[in-house]
Amino acid sequence: MTPEEFRIHGHQLIDWIADYRATLAGRPVMAATKPKEITNQLPTSPPQDPEPFEQILADLDTVVLPGLSHWQHPRFFGYFPSNGLLAGVLGDLASTGLGVLGLAWQSSPAITEIEDVTLDWVRQMVGLSINWHGVIQDTASTSTLVALITARERITNYALARGGLQAEPKPLIIYVSAQSHSSVDKAALLAGFGRDNIRLVPTDADLAMRPAALASMIEADLAANLLPCAIVATTGTTATTAIDPVQAIADLASQHNLWLHVDAAMAGSAMILPECRWMWSGIEQADSLVLNAHKWLGVPFDCSLYFVRDPEHLVRVMSTNPSFLQSSVDGQVRNLRDWGIPLGRRFRALKLWFILREQGVSGLQSRLRRDLANAQTLAAVVAATPNWRVVAPVPLQTVCIRHEPDGLTGEALDTHTKAWAQAVNESGEAYLTPATLDGRWMVRISIGALPTEAGDIAQTWATIRRIAESS
Amino acid sequence: MTPEEFRIHGHQLIDWIADYRATLAGRPVMAATKPKEITNQLPTSPPQDPEPFEQILADLDTVVLPGLSHWQHPRFFGYFPSNGLLAGVLGDLASTGLGVLGLAWQSSPAITEIEDVTLDWVRQMVGLSINWHGVIQDTASTSTLVALITARERITNYALARGGLQAEPKPLIIYVSAQSHSSVDKAALLAGFGRDNIRLVPTDADLAMRPAALASMIEADLAANLLPCAIVATTGTTATTAIDPVQAIADLASQHNLWLHVDAAMAGSAMILPECRWMWSGIEQADSLVLNAHKWLGVPFDCSLYFVRDPEHLVRVMSTNPSFLQSSVDGQVRNLRDWGIPLGRRFRALKLWFILREQGVSGLQSRLRRDLANAQTLAAVVAATPNWRVVAPVPLQTVCIRHEPDGLTGEALDTHTKAWAQAVNESGEAYLTPATLDGRWMVRISIGALPTEAGDIAQTWATIRRIAESS
Repeated sequence: MTPEEFRIHGHQLIDWIADYRATLAGRPVMAATKPKEITNQLPTSPPQDPEPFEQILADLDTVVLPGLSHWQHPRFFGYFPSNGLLAGVLGDLASTGLGVLGLAWQSSPAITEIEDVTLDWVRQMVGLSINWHGVIQDTASTSTLVALITARERITNYALARGGLQAEPKPLIIYVSAQSHSSVDKAALLAGFGRDNIRLVPTDADLAMRPAALASMIEADLAANLLPCAIVATTGTTATTAIDPVQAIADLASQHNLWLHVDAAMAGSAMILPECRWMWSGIEQADSLVLNAHKWLGVPFDCSLYFVRDPEHLVRVMSTNPSFLQSSVDGQVRNLRDWGIPLGRRFRALKLWFILREQGVSGLQSRLRRDLANAQTLAAVVAATPNWRVVAPVPLQTVCIRHEPDGLTGEALDTHTKAWAQAVNESGEAYLTPATLDGRWMVRISIGALPTEAGDIAQTWATIRRIAESS
Repeated sequence: MTPEEFRIHGHQLIDWIADYRATLAGRPVMAATKPKEITNQLPTSPPQDPEPFEQILADLDTVVLPGLSHWQHPRFFGYFPSNGLLAGVLGDLASTGLGVLGLAWQSSPAITEIEDVTLDWVRQMVGLSINWHGVIQDTASTSTLVALITARERITNYALARGGLQAEPKPLIIYVSAQSHSSVDKAALLAGFGRDNIRLVPTDADLAMRPAALASMIEADLAANLLPCAIVATTGTTATTAIDPVQAIADLASQHNLWLHVDAAMAGSAMILPECRWMWSGIEQADSLVLNAHKWLGVPFDCSLYFVRDPEHLVRVMSTNPSFLQSSVDGQVRNLRDWGIPLGRRFRALKLWFILREQGVSGLQSRLRRDLANAQTLAAVVAATPNWRVVAPVPLQTVCIRHEPDGLTGEALDTHTKAWAQAVNESGEAYLTPATLDGRWMVRISIGALPTEAGDIAQTWATIRRIAESS
């Protein structure tokens, strides 16, 4: 494809995306695809010769679209939102079109410097002190893995430079909430800790970590001659957006010299609202935190922001310095390969930069406040409806509900819950995610897609009632 | 930005990218940026209110472009190529515009199924048997980390499900070539192995791993009651594209039941040429391999292809199954979150699919053959020039050279080498990467950017001679 052909097909694709976004509300939210249905439409062998690009673009309509559940849809309430603001789509297009890589500052200086500046802007926007330094990672899963590996190395005084984890005599212990994200558990296992060394701290009635229980567990482990290493607190858990008490947890971390990582992947975006900052009160005592700009904030995936208070420690764990990456300015610049796992890095800061400027802080704040208000309204309506219950507090934008018809309990209630959620999803009218809470199924309505207005929520609530109450 | 505004600005940006690519040859290849030069042009605080998008796009010219070294330039010979074919830029744009996520097959089935199909196409293209199964990772750094973690878990019979790495009595040993990429070393350290347990196997005159030395090291470790765990062989090392003898190494791996990971990040692309497949002869006995489609092949970064022979083992190490990700089709489908570290996944298979179809196998083969021929031509010209030397074999597209003026040796020669390379880079006429080889500096000319033709190489060679011979 020559630049002139790119011009033609690029305009076609831009128009296609504009049409897609403009007409999305009319599509079923969830794909009705059966397993292998898309596979069976495609050749089993690679094309030997070039195909006309028109045919490739046409397959977006015929092959791809029917196989998608639409995350940018106004009635997408699944998982957590993963918003892609259109200004960010263009920021990412600029990055891909330029095709430059940040292996080192020198390999394309703007990549590093615009990341420096925009991450510092976000730091200010969420009210963090100047002691924090940020870097873009792909996902919170990776950010948390980086956090736990650096925690492991700090407490062992850099065992990686000697005999590694096996040479450490006392088993290292990680503390996580029973409500923490599956990726936290996974990160601990991948970092080599072992399931026996992961403590699941119980939660209170609001599903937040209980500091007293955490304190007891740490004491018990110390008494057993084990080595407490790190705590992961969550600001906005996945099931119900519960808020762990960061301040009380941070005090325990300080007292015992443990690494504190705060998983604010979801609620971190809300910290641009001063009225929400109570949620991570105590954050300045943490060692690391993750905030996914690719969720509610609206930067197209992937853009997970990882902040640390001691970048020298991070760099010491992650750094490599082969001859082919050395340059005369080393020491005067950041080399972001030393701030995470991958060596190669795209110009991801462009999409973040585009969005912060196109929206402004005020634009982002208004949208988040809209969603918070919508969640409160929905929660009030559900709570006021007979046989319906809001099963968890609603500090953010996710409302967890259950329909509890008279006399229905236990397994029968679970069956009913999963059935109506699936029926709503299969109707195409809205997309919801069922999840378990204290061993029982409930349904999460995670508000916050870009085009979701109060009317979409009212329409979805009517759909939910119609389906659940008649089943 | 509304869809209608997106249409306008999207067309502008497409045209801007088309112009950028069409006029790139006229720009200096390397940025002349000084540290903080870009930072100092930007506000120190985030914008409170929205800025006009015209201003943001204009800053691509005024702020961004002067701060870039241009990887898509016809005279970019640095590092390894990271090509972004324009059809792939559009594939990635489609992905970002759709804004769908693959947390699970069900969260947007086309993401998983098109990845299934395209990875199987690549498998066929590079001559791998049906025993291999592929998945897209971000970079080879991550792919190799995944490989070493899975190796660690196989030999310990899933220690992560019990006491983790610390509970294993015998130190686990990793074998890598002294020429292997810095990311291999880093992956081993991050996986918890410890530097004392990484063996650097010596290389032969061609800079390939010596199987006899590897065998001796394994024997010595066994005799010392250590536990050999994994070998990383490289097909196309970073410094000189040396080719480790996979067959001989694989035989040792089989004999001792070690995990064999093959880092074919660079040379893997060349396996689409049957005449190059001798380079990884024995590959069918490996356990895992990585092939970066975002390098020479031309899929826009990031698109690192990781293939394994035993996906059940990979899934057992990487899987998570929280309630909110469960669906009624689990068991009938692949859930790619269980094939790597991140939970969230972009629709990266789209750009790969677009390129395989727009180019066809034949189109990709022709371009790679052009580059291989160009490298041979350059190597012959350099070797025939007095006081110039090709310092390593040229099996692929990278030519490693040194200018050796009469009487210049040791440190003085190093100073001369680094000086002329830097002068070439600062001239803006071409971009080269100096690197060390056996403790001495040389200069890598890594051919293979998309628009690089024989004339660009002749021009660059003239520049190199002019600068080096007059300094």
